[in-house]
Amino acid sequence: MTVVEQMLDDHPSIDDKTDVAALRECIEACFECAQACTACADACLAEDHVEMLRQCIRLNLDCADVCEATGRVLLRRTAESIDLRRAMLAACVVACRACGDECERHAAEHRHCATCAEACRRYQRACSVLLES
Amino acid sequence: MTVVEQMLDDHPSIDDKTDVAALRECIEACFECAQACTACADACLAEDHVEMLRQCIRLNLDCADVCEATGRVLLRRTAESIDLRRAMLAACVVACRACGDECERHAAEHRHCATCAEACRRYQRACSVLLES
Amino acid sequence: MTVVEQMLDDHPSIDDKTDVAALRECIEACFECAQACTACADACLAEDHVEMLRQCIRLNLDCADVCEATGRVLLRRTAESIDLRRAMLAACVVACRACGDECERHAAEHRHCATCAEACRRYQRACSVLLES
Amino acid sequence: MTVVEQMLDDHPSIDDKTDVAALRECIEACFECAQACTACADACLAEDHVEMLRQCIRLNLDCADVCEATGRVLLRRTAESIDLRRAMLAACVVACRACGDECERHAAEHRHCATCAEACRRYQRACSVLLES
Repeated sequence: MTVVEQMLDDHPSIDDKTDVAALRECIEACFECAQACTACADACLAEDHVEMLRQCIRLNLDCADVCEATGRVLLRRTAESIDLRRAMLAACVVACRACGDECERHAAEHRHCATCAEACRRYQRACSVLLES
Repeated sequence: MTVVEQMLDDHPSIDDKTDVAALRECIEACFECAQACTACADACLAEDHVEMLRQCIRLNLDCADVCEATGRVLLRRTAESIDLRRAMLAACVVACRACGDECERHAAEHRHCATCAEACRRYQRACSVLLES
Repeated sequence: MTVVEQMLDDHPSIDDKTDVAALRECIEACFECAQACTACADACLAEDHVEMLRQCIRLNLDCADVCEATGRVLLRRTAESIDLRRAMLAACVVACRACGDECERHAAEHRHCATCAEACRRYQRACSVLLES
Repeated sequence: MTVVEQMLDDHPSIDDKTDVAALRECIEACFECAQACTACADACLAEDHVEMLRQCIRLNLDCADVCEATGRVLLRRTAESIDLRRAMLAACVVACRACGDECERHAAEHRHCATCAEACRRYQRACSVLLES
């Protein structure tokens, strides 16, 4: 059992409307994506041709910030606001699509970009599932 | 001249399409709102009737996180992504409306809620101006 | 292989002095602790006797913020600064000890506090191992 | 009156031991430094010779993260922990010294580095004052 799973399980205000499995997958993919993006920005910065990776670094930094804020919002179950959750998931879809697309362009050359693109895709899918639930 | 103003001015990739005055006001209101929300959550937590302020604290925490992430996205001018900016501004409008409304309910009783409501309103207006520009 | 493990492995500037296994464990425990603390603050807020949990909530919020900043610093390998890493690990030890102690006081009553205390202890140990390496 | 000043003033748990003027200056300098560092990292990324600015970008990113976490800790007055505050201020001194020194090396060439160095110095002084009070 992961910490996120336990914390969702232990919360005093259980609400039956939320698909907890979808929420858990989304939160875990969200923080994983934030970590991949922070690390990818830093790895890009150390590459020989950093001048080719400006856009990748910028998108990584944005995506990391947006994911971390969203992960915190999703972890909170007290007095939930569905509107804000939806707005942040929508922003994450935008951030992950842009960052995932850019990372894919460098995936053949840089393994960290391939790993990051995959984390963006996983989280983007999780956002879509949660948005539809 | 504020630091935000100077940094916007000093950036190497000047783009003529952005309304820099609107951007600057938005960034400054954004970080001010984040600070007000972080402090209001903490002040609410110390109030005698904290059990009446659960929703206020939760909305404050969300709003602070969303604003900080947005402030960072707005500060970045390299390889700008208009879509992400718009999605985050839209999320901020949702967060500030909810938090500002809730804080106003407690404004007569708690001065920190009145101050926070005002910061939310100022930033909400700045987001709308930037979204329309 | 976790994303953190992959990203540490894929980084272009490999440095032989760092104990990568200790670093990886520390980064993973760090983000896990941040998530546990964010969720515990929120679960405490929803408890019947929230007025008994003020200190726990405050320490949770601090610990989450300090851990997230530290996790980002630790993920970065480009132009590493050992001094900042050590200072942040030292701050994490302080934050985790205070938060873990407070959560333990409520562990019998609230399972989320027990889970959070455990996450704090795991990360505190990982910080000590990395500080000594 | 700034929002930080108002929020410090409005907090229900006033404690007479803290030098509020020093605390306010420290909080304001802290968030100003975080904003300068986030913007400087981004401006450096857009410079022609970004490969000369790797260390500057990395230190900027670290300093921004450490400052934001510290600003939040300092804004909280409920159940204050002096130990964590001191540990975070000590980490900020390390981060600001490293980032300020590196930015100064590029100050003649890049105005954003000069602005950022100044913000680091202002905050570093504010930390030292608060640490001694």
